[in-house]
Amino acid sequence: LNFHHIGIFVKSLDFGYSQMSKFINIGSTSQKIEDEVIGVEIIFLKDTHNITYELVSPYGDNSPVKGVFARGKDFLNHIAYTTNQFDYEIKRLRTEGMIPLGPAKKAKAFKGARVIFFLTTLGFIIELVENKLEII
Amino acid sequence: LNFHHIGIFVKSLDFGYSQMSKFINIGSTSQKIEDEVIGVEIIFLKDTHNITYELVSPYGDNSPVKGVFARGKDFLNHIAYTTNQFDYEIKRLRTEGMIPLGPAKKAKAFKGARVIFFLTTLGFIIELVENKLEII
Repeated sequence: LNFHHIGIFVKSLDFGYSQMSKFINIGSTSQKIEDEVIGVEIIFLKDTHNITYELVSPYGDNSPVKGVFARGKDFLNHIAYTTNQFDYEIKRLRTEGMIPLGPAKKAKAFKGARVIFFLTTLGFIIELVENKLEII
Repeated sequence: LNFHHIGIFVKSLDFGYSQMSKFINIGSTSQKIEDEVIGVEIIFLKDTHNITYELVSPYGDNSPVKGVFARGKDFLNHIAYTTNQFDYEIKRLRTEGMIPLGPAKKAKAFKGARVIFFLTTLGFIIELVENKLEII
């Protein structure tokens, strides 16, 4: 799997951007992406060391992000990886004991490529992103 | 600040290594570092995309890592950055509302360079590492 980004949950994209800029040098910023299906609003930031951060904030009333704020944990939420073998890797990770957090969904942030989240055996979340095209 | 690593808390370094290898391609691995002062045992992994991960497990009876396991959260624990202006950056981050989690300490993992952890205004932890020499 290929490292893609560090996913961070923020109350609002503006607040997230302003606070991240206190400790990273933001080199480029994506457009804001509103994904009604998944219930999130997203921007990607790339720092001057070429590390990509995804800021995710709640969108709509049933956003899965709201639970994170209710629980007050896991703001540093996930590490995302791309793969050219999306379906194969899902099966493989399951046999390794990683637990899917819901089904794969098409994500607007990745131009309709599928994503799926797993709770790893180490207690944190990883995201798989189907690498079917140049994403950003 | 310069991205250095993603810090992950694991029950044991062996278990952490074996599980990380299920989803990253490990390119190189550091020696194991036992830091009695901070109460942690550490290895660094670098994946084939040049991302460095720090695996941290408890060492000794008073390890600060044990609280994370008791609370069952924040296993994806922190993002670490190096800086050549360690003392200046500590003051600056404080004025920006980031909260130091204890004093700066010399860390064996960084050959005695000082480290300090901050709770950011985004609810997750960052580590500052004094960049006084080539670390790894």
